[in-house]
Amino acid sequence: MTQSVTDQPESPQISAQASSSEHAPRPFDNLLGIEDLSRAEIQELLDRGRYYAPRQNPVRKLDTLRGKTIVNLFFEPSTRTRASFEIAAKRLGADTVTISGDGSSLSKDESLVDMLNTLSAMRPDAIVMRHSASGAPHFLSRYLSTPIINAGDGQHEHPTQALLDALTILDCRPSLEGLRVAIIGDVGHSRVARSNIHLLSKFGAQLVLCGPATMLPRPLASLAPGITLTYNIEEAVTGADVIMMLRVQLERQNVVNFPKNEYYQFYGLQLEHLRRARPDTIVMHPGPINRGREISSEVADSSRSVILNQVENGVAIRMAVLERVCAQR
Amino acid sequence: MTQSVTDQPESPQISAQASSSEHAPRPFDNLLGIEDLSRAEIQELLDRGRYYAPRQNPVRKLDTLRGKTIVNLFFEPSTRTRASFEIAAKRLGADTVTISGDGSSLSKDESLVDMLNTLSAMRPDAIVMRHSASGAPHFLSRYLSTPIINAGDGQHEHPTQALLDALTILDCRPSLEGLRVAIIGDVGHSRVARSNIHLLSKFGAQLVLCGPATMLPRPLASLAPGITLTYNIEEAVTGADVIMMLRVQLERQNVVNFPKNEYYQFYGLQLEHLRRARPDTIVMHPGPINRGREISSEVADSSRSVILNQVENGVAIRMAVLERVCAQR
Amino acid sequence: MTQSVTDQPESPQISAQASSSEHAPRPFDNLLGIEDLSRAEIQELLDRGRYYAPRQNPVRKLDTLRGKTIVNLFFEPSTRTRASFEIAAKRLGADTVTISGDGSSLSKDESLVDMLNTLSAMRPDAIVMRHSASGAPHFLSRYLSTPIINAGDGQHEHPTQALLDALTILDCRPSLEGLRVAIIGDVGHSRVARSNIHLLSKFGAQLVLCGPATMLPRPLASLAPGITLTYNIEEAVTGADVIMMLRVQLERQNVVNFPKNEYYQFYGLQLEHLRRARPDTIVMHPGPINRGREISSEVADSSRSVILNQVENGVAIRMAVLERVCAQR
Repeated sequence: MTQSVTDQPESPQISAQASSSEHAPRPFDNLLGIEDLSRAEIQELLDRGRYYAPRQNPVRKLDTLRGKTIVNLFFEPSTRTRASFEIAAKRLGADTVTISGDGSSLSKDESLVDMLNTLSAMRPDAIVMRHSASGAPHFLSRYLSTPIINAGDGQHEHPTQALLDALTILDCRPSLEGLRVAIIGDVGHSRVARSNIHLLSKFGAQLVLCGPATMLPRPLASLAPGITLTYNIEEAVTGADVIMMLRVQLERQNVVNFPKNEYYQFYGLQLEHLRRARPDTIVMHPGPINRGREISSEVADSSRSVILNQVENGVAIRMAVLERVCAQR
Repeated sequence: MTQSVTDQPESPQISAQASSSEHAPRPFDNLLGIEDLSRAEIQELLDRGRYYAPRQNPVRKLDTLRGKTIVNLFFEPSTRTRASFEIAAKRLGADTVTISGDGSSLSKDESLVDMLNTLSAMRPDAIVMRHSASGAPHFLSRYLSTPIINAGDGQHEHPTQALLDALTILDCRPSLEGLRVAIIGDVGHSRVARSNIHLLSKFGAQLVLCGPATMLPRPLASLAPGITLTYNIEEAVTGADVIMMLRVQLERQNVVNFPKNEYYQFYGLQLEHLRRARPDTIVMHPGPINRGREISSEVADSSRSVILNQVENGVAIRMAVLERVCAQR
Repeated sequence: MTQSVTDQPESPQISAQASSSEHAPRPFDNLLGIEDLSRAEIQELLDRGRYYAPRQNPVRKLDTLRGKTIVNLFFEPSTRTRASFEIAAKRLGADTVTISGDGSSLSKDESLVDMLNTLSAMRPDAIVMRHSASGAPHFLSRYLSTPIINAGDGQHEHPTQALLDALTILDCRPSLEGLRVAIIGDVGHSRVARSNIHLLSKFGAQLVLCGPATMLPRPLASLAPGITLTYNIEEAVTGADVIMMLRVQLERQNVVNFPKNEYYQFYGLQLEHLRRARPDTIVMHPGPINRGREISSEVADSSRSVILNQVENGVAIRMAVLERVCAQR
């Protein structure tokens, strides 16, 4: 069963305002989402990310951002993304200050704007921010003189993930144009999916979104032209150049949308699925992976898996982003 | 209604001993409180803080404390003060090690002296410390060879806050002498108030302390000569050069001393109050602010508010303090 | 009552495999345990540790590991060991990224191997790791290209503790050969004891292990030749050159093995015990100490105590270990 609908997309709560053209944030100061970036801006980040990738040049400490201070502000617990940004900043010579916890321990009665204004008054050069509210960084960027880098906002965007994913695909393919990319899982609630959809569409990839009906709202098809929706994983992976699995995050859903035990049976990626894809297909996952839940161990550990390449490219892309945001100041 | 009494002040639990002259800690090694500092010592810190303020000189990374290690030891949760000290240390080129949590997770069965002696044996150059027990840093400083900087001890002192507040006032006035300063809120439980009272009195400001009777113990008037107490906010702000609001911290009070809903009505600072003050009055708050609780949004966001300037000066003053404590070693 | 038995030692859960010769991890890349190290390797680390000890050379910041990144990954809460490694790394000029929490908050559904592989893909130069599972770092080291430094694994090994202990003994004695060392407390559950037993035995010390029967399984005697077991503290300390007390850690035992109130009476070290030891005996403890539980305050604060020297040497030994592990890469 395949759908291709043209309903208006559901607007995330805050971002619709924040990304409207009249309030458009300084495009070179922040990195809020992929949606707002032009192809040229994305290409520039990818090129610079490639330059920093350890496969291109040996890892070494640079002085590019020496004297700069990066605040990592994580309202949601995070190990890998925080560590990746911290390593990226330090490799460029910047100092970092990390503030993390859940929202309740961090903000108490203080408003988010007041908290960010306070941090901003300490004159850091950028604030890397993760928050559970969709659109929070876009909203804040209108009030702050310090650039914000979005490290994930609710179910909205996770732009550095989409950039590192594109860089990883381009390690295996000469271009994104015309590639068939299947994104499989809880697409509707996924900021990773949303950022990837924006990026891959801008570069002419053919997108197939796949998941159970409860996780695949039909308006997703309108995020970009030519998106296909399907509830059938076999159909999604057939002929795929790239299979991008999403993490099952029951904690982020308001209701349990699918029986847990049946999820793997219907939407877990297994070796037999790879036979339907292109022989040189690559399997991606933003991590952390749940083995036996959305992906089998055989697939995760197979030669088609580029999951650790994604992590490796993550540091490189974040160096490119931090450099771009901070170096102009 | 105004009081001016001469009762003996309530001695904080431990500090009375620690600050007595025969046990006087090395005055140039620690920064324990404003009470022990001379006008000349304070002036030196203010002058150096001004030098580091971003309005005076552009923010840049220095090598002043290169090779020094600062331990930030926060037994009470803190975001802003910890970040401010961390940024200050790094801007001076020092390395930082942060240890934070509530007391229970940090010390278990180990005594505080043993824990500090252990950290001291790792040879850091200073320990910045916040603790819920009044006098804790004074007590510890008698046993340690490592300098301690008090980042807030119970209801006793918060010396860097008073220094940054003075620096902020001096951005708007040529001198503290003769200024009328109203300190409003839970004065009795506030370490911010206590440090400010000591500092401002030493420099000849006229202090008016204001709050509900349960938060304004009469012995406060004896902390320094010429202090006035009042339960009436209109009276407090009349003719004020500086209005210093205190944060409502119900969590730090043993009993709820005032009905929460009525607090704002009687002691929340609102626009109409500013008309009674001097036209060039400034409004201060140590943060984080509770809008609609002790201060209205209109006042917090008005042109009279210097709240973010305080934050900005906080990093500068902490650079001055760290430099003074560490550079002599 | 004294025992000297030759039963096979209880193998820790995972390490038996990991340390078998055919799976022997790269010996110069990791620091997993003392058991796998030769006398020459240990001696090299002790010599280098002595070089870095503050009594030998003034503390200063070096560039030895400039550009290197050390990840500190603590699955068990730790203040002192984490701070010691962090200070050691920074003193050598390395950057550090700290990830800490209990296992549940850190790994969720992700496997430990996946988590470590992810961190490894960010290309740090070493991962310092503490985990509650005995053998965890040995197991992981077989899968990772990043060197692992064991900062304590379950009840198995804590190699840097044994190294710093040896360095501290050698501050007071010309050699370990023939020294009588009493290790007193919950020896059976102690990774500190186990690493010390391996190290001290390799250098020809005479070991007396002492504790209640429930904490002193007879197979301990087979860890190395010539080990004596006793349930009697008087017998253990008689003629001792070194008295090494262990921390009472009820939280790490599956059952309460001894009445808490009687423990101090039978196994707490008190001044009267020191009279039975050599006049120049030294008292050691890995910290944090429980005064009045396993050691009296009089002993902890006596001139025979070298507890803070151990902490001081801890930073020096960890500098030696980090340098050795990272500098070869």
